[in-house]
Amino acid sequence: EKVALMQAKRKEAGETGAPEKPGKFVLKTGKGTRDYGPAQSALRNSVLQTVTETFNRYGAETIDTPVFELRDVLMGKYGEEGGKLVYDLQDQGGELLSLRYDLTVPFARYLAMNKITNITRYQIAKVYRRDQPVMSRGRYREFYQCDFDIAGQYDLMLPEAECLGIVDELLTKLEIGEFFINLNHRLILEGMFAVSGIPAKDFKTICSSVDKLDKTPWEDVEQEMINEKFLTKEQTGKLGELVRFRELNSDLNNLELLEKMSQLPDLGQNDKFKKGAEELKVLIEYLNVDGVTTVRYEPSLARGLDYYTGAIYEAVAPKALEGTAVENSEDTAGQPVGVGSVAAGGRYDGLVKMFDSKANVPCCGVSFGIERLFAIMEARQKVAIRTTQTEVYVASAQKNLVRDRKKLVKMLRSAGIKTEMALKANPKLLTQFQYAEERRIPLAIVIGEQELKDGVVKLRNVVTRDEQTIKLDQLITAVRDTLAAL
Amino acid sequence: EKVALMQAKRKEAGETGAPEKPGKFVLKTGKGTRDYGPAQSALRNSVLQTVTETFNRYGAETIDTPVFELRDVLMGKYGEEGGKLVYDLQDQGGELLSLRYDLTVPFARYLAMNKITNITRYQIAKVYRRDQPVMSRGRYREFYQCDFDIAGQYDLMLPEAECLGIVDELLTKLEIGEFFINLNHRLILEGMFAVSGIPAKDFKTICSSVDKLDKTPWEDVEQEMINEKFLTKEQTGKLGELVRFRELNSDLNNLELLEKMSQLPDLGQNDKFKKGAEELKVLIEYLNVDGVTTVRYEPSLARGLDYYTGAIYEAVAPKALEGTAVENSEDTAGQPVGVGSVAAGGRYDGLVKMFDSKANVPCCGVSFGIERLFAIMEARQKVAIRTTQTEVYVASAQKNLVRDRKKLVKMLRSAGIKTEMALKANPKLLTQFQYAEERRIPLAIVIGEQELKDGVVKLRNVVTRDEQTIKLDQLITAVRDTLAAL
Repeated sequence: EKVALMQAKRKEAGETGAPEKPGKFVLKTGKGTRDYGPAQSALRNSVLQTVTETFNRYGAETIDTPVFELRDVLMGKYGEEGGKLVYDLQDQGGELLSLRYDLTVPFARYLAMNKITNITRYQIAKVYRRDQPVMSRGRYREFYQCDFDIAGQYDLMLPEAECLGIVDELLTKLEIGEFFINLNHRLILEGMFAVSGIPAKDFKTICSSVDKLDKTPWEDVEQEMINEKFLTKEQTGKLGELVRFRELNSDLNNLELLEKMSQLPDLGQNDKFKKGAEELKVLIEYLNVDGVTTVRYEPSLARGLDYYTGAIYEAVAPKALEGTAVENSEDTAGQPVGVGSVAAGGRYDGLVKMFDSKANVPCCGVSFGIERLFAIMEARQKVAIRTTQTEVYVASAQKNLVRDRKKLVKMLRSAGIKTEMALKANPKLLTQFQYAEERRIPLAIVIGEQELKDGVVKLRNVVTRDEQTIKLDQLITAVRDTLAAL
Repeated sequence: EKVALMQAKRKEAGETGAPEKPGKFVLKTGKGTRDYGPAQSALRNSVLQTVTETFNRYGAETIDTPVFELRDVLMGKYGEEGGKLVYDLQDQGGELLSLRYDLTVPFARYLAMNKITNITRYQIAKVYRRDQPVMSRGRYREFYQCDFDIAGQYDLMLPEAECLGIVDELLTKLEIGEFFINLNHRLILEGMFAVSGIPAKDFKTICSSVDKLDKTPWEDVEQEMINEKFLTKEQTGKLGELVRFRELNSDLNNLELLEKMSQLPDLGQNDKFKKGAEELKVLIEYLNVDGVTTVRYEPSLARGLDYYTGAIYEAVAPKALEGTAVENSEDTAGQPVGVGSVAAGGRYDGLVKMFDSKANVPCCGVSFGIERLFAIMEARQKVAIRTTQTEVYVASAQKNLVRDRKKLVKMLRSAGIKTEMALKANPKLLTQFQYAEERRIPLAIVIGEQELKDGVVKLRNVVTRDEQTIKLDQLITAVRDTLAAL
């Protein structure tokens, strides 16, 4: 009642709609989300720039889709588990909307809706999942995805080779340390399951067990399949020989592994396996031509099979955090220093059809785990990135020179030079120098009454503190030359 | 029932969760939102790059905040009308969230939450309003905002001069045609209202009438104030003389107008007016030093007063669409070709306090109507912007050269040259040339069996169709030189 009275009074007084009890707010961001301050934003933008440049080097276009989609567009696309994690918007009258869960389904919707049959595009945008957040492990409810996809009718494995080339090139460029790209094929998995006597209906659930082999010993995975998924020891025994083929033949290279598997009496005769293996051979041969040496054929890779129909791949950087502060922090103590998957993708020829049954738009692509890459770059950086790009700081040695500083700032900015000055009428010289040093602004220009009289300025190297006197009409050239020589 | 049965069957068959009736979807984006294809995205990114460069030239940092905020953070910040337009997320257990309505309130929340008293930052991000969309006029429910703000204790009008400098510089750079920046001050409005006998409680509602004067004749505005807001003819008569002071004294410049108003017997003695006018004089003098000539003191500018406390400003580009296709299109026929506000801002010293009553963080800033700027740039562009940055297209004249094309592509990309090739094993030469021409890729490299034998390639200017033969080991240099000379 008191509050209502206060509100009424406020309204009468023409006040703005301030909260009733300022300071009583719990000041926080939504669960699983966070702000990124200048230092984090600068680092993230620099990584994103490298990503964008790489995508551009491969001739990609970019598109943009809304942050929310009609709920029907997302429904039924992410399996039972994924579906539970979709953020719904409140029904405020009108359409039922949900925040996007990834960029792939909106991309397929975009292709079907606009009847596009042919595009190589990237998209960098945030997606939303009502997952249990683990901030210390970098798992958030709002996070960036960076997707590169090739849609269209192309020849066998040429699009896949482009995707894997991008992964190889970008991860090399980012200097995240040693990495591998595991490669498999849906048809190879289906073939291995078939000759192991595992029914098609169990495909996805057994895949999710097999996929744990990168972190879990075979014995535990086998127990799970027997106890929880009711396979027989015979089934798991056979399956184990196949999905562990790389592990059990670690001396063989990719083509030799495929060759040896092809010679197994049962698997070698399975049509699905044969087709999958033939396709991967073509891809591996292209990758050899491209000089991509980080790809490993790995028959236990078994993820993303909700919609992948052909080749699947996933990049891992097991030692990316080795030797960094993160490795030894309490949050991660005793945990592996790898960061799991940093990129994953594959061929998905059926997704566009889900929106338009007459559309035939084969697609393959790759999504970078950019948040993990940010975390790796942050952990590995030796010197914090600058948060501004300012090149010159204009300072004054005496009072009453604000207009003269402004004139210089204007002159420099007009010449395209990134320039700042103190927004104080009479700042102290020391304070100005300290600011320029803290912000790592490379050059300072100093004026005083004498300089103004003489038509000169002092050009100061902020790091070495060397100063030289420059005539005003030669200032722009001098600044440009000095910046170029730094 | 049939559907349920089908679903069950599907599940059994291990199929993915396809929609029951593919093709039966209404394929659309949410009301008031749209996709941006490659052409629009390329244009928008190029505009955003100019914006970012300008912000960087002024020494700004950037931050990032989540797309949704706790509902309490947004509540009570946008007046009654604005509040209705906030998108709420569904209560799915846990916190109540809403999509951000602008970037200013999240910025204030960020400052208060992190106890930041001092930052010059820009933020470019999308905001959400459940408004009635008018697509043909560019009014959407999801749209970008580009905000530049200076928070901190600085000296009088120096931050405002930076904000207006950015507006002037960016709008000049974007070449949107003639523009003006209208300038006013909250205290001047309050002073004018006071000497017109208008009670403080009517401040906001009368402001919203006065603010219509840029589009509506005085007589109509006066009638609205009398009939709907119950002012007397005496009150409106007095107010009209003051808010139309520029219109009625069109021969005077900014300082002369302020001077003449200061000499009015009643207004000149009003303390609020005096303070506001003194402040604007300082600002106008700084702008003269900076050579900013587009600012007009306009006593009828009266918007954004939910939170502005000092100077307010707004840029308009009345002729931005003149002579463009948009001017003559059916959608806009008979309507003014101007696009209204393209940037607006002001000083808001009280907003951070709404989150932390002990915080004293004066702020001023400007928000660019970037969607309008996109529309202007789109309408004014003579040649569509390229959607890719590809510099070289590698083509083959005969069959079975896919591996050789791949090797060349790899070599060029490794040298940082943006390169594409057809993802077909045996594409026709003509098809390859056509693609390069359509995409406006400047150079093509052509190989055939003879070239491979001779260790050379043909380097082709796609526009002129001139070709020269280049030795393979000189290719990178030749490509770089040719690109540089284009």
